[in-house]
Amino acid sequence: MVKLVVAYGQPEDPAGFDEHYVSRHIPLVEKIPNLRRFESGKVVGTPDGSAPPFYYLAELSFDDVEQLQAAMGSPEGEAAGADVATFASGGATLMIAQT
Amino acid sequence: MVKLVVAYGQPEDPAGFDEHYVSRHIPLVEKIPNLRRFESGKVVGTPDGSAPPFYYLAELSFDDVEQLQAAMGSPEGEAAGADVATFASGGATLMIAQT
Repeated sequence: MVKLVVAYGQPEDPAGFDEHYVSRHIPLVEKIPNLRRFESGKVVGTPDGSAPPFYYLAELSFDDVEQLQAAMGSPEGEAAGADVATFASGGATLMIAQT
Repeated sequence: MVKLVVAYGQPEDPAGFDEHYVSRHIPLVEKIPNLRRFESGKVVGTPDGSAPPFYYLAELSFDDVEQLQAAMGSPEGEAAGADVATFASGGATLMIAQT
């Protein structure tokens, strides 16, 4: 399995981020073809109490890298990707992890 | 559900990291009580081809924050945590995410 991990930096407007994420971004992600699993969650802290480096984490799982690339290049994948720029005011770090 | 996400920085000796992770660290993690799911994987790239900020990602899932804290404070959790310092030469960033 392969995952696209999206690590969002601290946004300027956390409440606006949260609202947009749930009401607009998740529905776009759920339309992405070949998506095997989608999980996302807010970073609530760190074990040692230090400031966490990211605000929100999401992961999109696919069968393999080819399926991931095809999915993210599809109209639905491009729509979800384009949406990120509209609310991720703290930036978004994307990584592909092979599990 | 709550996840402990561990993001490992680039190690000085990637082959040594990989060997230790599979042969010694995973067996320690699998002994942690209350662990609902454990997934880990190597970061193989980024969608835009830029250098990824982390080398390896792991996530340990628990039912809630209380279970996570109890698990990581158990002898098995402390053993797995102490082991990290023996191989994570590129550092390890830990975050707790509420999904």
